[in-house]
Amino acid sequence: MSFPRVGVIGAGQLARMMAIPANNLGISFRVFAAIPNDSAAQVANFVIGDYTNAVDVLAFAQECDVITFEHELVPATVIRELEKRGVKVYPKADSFQYSQNKLLMREKMAEIGLPNPKWQKYEGGAVDIAFPLIAKVPTGGYDGRGVYVIKNQEELQSLYLEVKSPLLLEEKLNFDYEISVMVARSPHEQAATWPATLTIQSDGICTQTVTPVPDISHELSTSVQSAALSIAQAISLVGVMAVEIFVVGDKFFINELALRPHNSGHWSIEGSQTSQFEQHLRAILDLPLGSTSMVAPYAVMGNVLGGEKHDMYRPYLHLMARRPDLHFHQYGKEVKPGRKIGHVTMIGDDLLQLQHEVTHAVDYMSGVIDE
Amino acid sequence: MSFPRVGVIGAGQLARMMAIPANNLGISFRVFAAIPNDSAAQVANFVIGDYTNAVDVLAFAQECDVITFEHELVPATVIRELEKRGVKVYPKADSFQYSQNKLLMREKMAEIGLPNPKWQKYEGGAVDIAFPLIAKVPTGGYDGRGVYVIKNQEELQSLYLEVKSPLLLEEKLNFDYEISVMVARSPHEQAATWPATLTIQSDGICTQTVTPVPDISHELSTSVQSAALSIAQAISLVGVMAVEIFVVGDKFFINELALRPHNSGHWSIEGSQTSQFEQHLRAILDLPLGSTSMVAPYAVMGNVLGGEKHDMYRPYLHLMARRPDLHFHQYGKEVKPGRKIGHVTMIGDDLLQLQHEVTHAVDYMSGVIDE
Repeated sequence: MSFPRVGVIGAGQLARMMAIPANNLGISFRVFAAIPNDSAAQVANFVIGDYTNAVDVLAFAQECDVITFEHELVPATVIRELEKRGVKVYPKADSFQYSQNKLLMREKMAEIGLPNPKWQKYEGGAVDIAFPLIAKVPTGGYDGRGVYVIKNQEELQSLYLEVKSPLLLEEKLNFDYEISVMVARSPHEQAATWPATLTIQSDGICTQTVTPVPDISHELSTSVQSAALSIAQAISLVGVMAVEIFVVGDKFFINELALRPHNSGHWSIEGSQTSQFEQHLRAILDLPLGSTSMVAPYAVMGNVLGGEKHDMYRPYLHLMARRPDLHFHQYGKEVKPGRKIGHVTMIGDDLLQLQHEVTHAVDYMSGVIDE
Repeated sequence: MSFPRVGVIGAGQLARMMAIPANNLGISFRVFAAIPNDSAAQVANFVIGDYTNAVDVLAFAQECDVITFEHELVPATVIRELEKRGVKVYPKADSFQYSQNKLLMREKMAEIGLPNPKWQKYEGGAVDIAFPLIAKVPTGGYDGRGVYVIKNQEELQSLYLEVKSPLLLEEKLNFDYEISVMVARSPHEQAATWPATLTIQSDGICTQTVTPVPDISHELSTSVQSAALSIAQAISLVGVMAVEIFVVGDKFFINELALRPHNSGHWSIEGSQTSQFEQHLRAILDLPLGSTSMVAPYAVMGNVLGGEKHDMYRPYLHLMARRPDLHFHQYGKEVKPGRKIGHVTMIGDDLLQLQHEVTHAVDYMSGVIDE
């Protein structure tokens, strides 16, 4: 049997959810974890190590046929070291950099002619964007970390002195809503997108997604999927990527890229013929991609954030009794306030009911409501 | 966190496929394997031991909250020993015996008024059933083992002398087709069935299933689901069970019971809101059962049997390219001729096309056809 061995750097919930299609596909799967209790290490073979240490990562990689990542924090130097040693790493460092460095990403979007918000690199000079504006530390941020709303020149100056590195400044768009398009691409250059997903945020954290985006025009839907495919091609993506997008009227603006399975694609586990996790494995192994068609008119996903309740088992029993068609995904993570500890998904045709039930379920699990 | 720990005796493909919803549900899951390379041991935590040894099994059980089985071969004495020691075992020995002893099963079906083929216990006396008839060794058989077509008295006598135990004799029904109804039941007595599945056999091995049974009358469909619920209630089932049934015209006859996830329920992984594997976990943990509704008009499953090809990776790459909506399940088992090494499923609305593609896929993987 020549079934390949995949190794994932990182052992959070994304790696945990990737283990599932790996089992179905018969692919040997292991994760590079920080501690044995990491989310994915609970359910898959693992090696303990430090992902910033090229020696550790290289030793892990030598037992695998392909290496991939589940987060943006693996240093580019480590990825390039693996590549230099002949390890097959996907996405490649040259692609992954657009996920790790937001300034590079803006330059690339401009180069391929996709709509950016107004932006500039800031190194202490003149500011061409109206305040309030968004300032981003180009590297190391995720889930809203490293992103600041800046009201005036003084605040900008003080942030710049604090971070001691160039900043990415962006206009603060008064957008109508945010969407995400998941796209997959393989070394053979086969590519596929799923329908665009509405991402509903609260305090910078995604709380619910709806796929497809309700009431989106055919033109916009086609344009954003086409944009995602163009980006995938332009950056030589291998794997899956989330393209986060702002929508203003009938226009769209690229927000961020994440070159990995993404929270906005979790709906695809139940809602699509092929989940983003299976597609990522197919892509990095250069297998033909699976069908991205939906199995129901709508899929609604809600993130379960840690709240007051520490025992998630009882609420979950209650919710199962209430809705037999609610799908649960527990990440096996310790409950901490605001931490993503799981998600729920429902598929069906009555969008309002699906949203109502998913909202109820996450609020009940987090302890926001009692019944 | 009080998420329960489930232990499965046996580590074949059924335990492997049960590991997947366990991960999603956040349930700690481990298997009792014979060797580390067993199908489920490749993808889940495991303990090595001998399932006929009560001491080994008891040690395993003490680290779990609930114990279940994936095959009928665990000795009743071992199950009863666990129960005596206060271990929560589902299904219970009193239920499981109907899966392990076909004579007891026939008696029970007669007791609850469900249609049996003509049958009798044979201990060397008169035979009331016309030859050719079916003779079954009541215990220890599965997948057609221990089942014989007997043409005359001499053959019966020689079988009886060989097995040295009572036999179950059954009329050889000239049935139109075989179906299976999966049913789940929890300690709270919540119960649910899925639509009946057509099981297409070749040489006593199931090769393909179609759900729901095409062209089945509403009356028959309702009757067989109702029969499955009655059996579940009568034998105090906890977990899932396959009720295998012969159909003759508008009549049906109970064939066999399997008190575990079953090959005829594999379609439910993609075809139903809740798979048989998730439902089994929900049932044995006394969680509310999930919805058994289908997510597409038809689900077709084909078993991949080992053939001439030993490398299953290349054919699978070819098939993925041909049909992006084909779902693969590899069991990680060594290829041996005739052995079930995986299955494929497709869901959709064009039944003939689904059957054509699934047949092609399994024939191609087994090496029966070359393109």
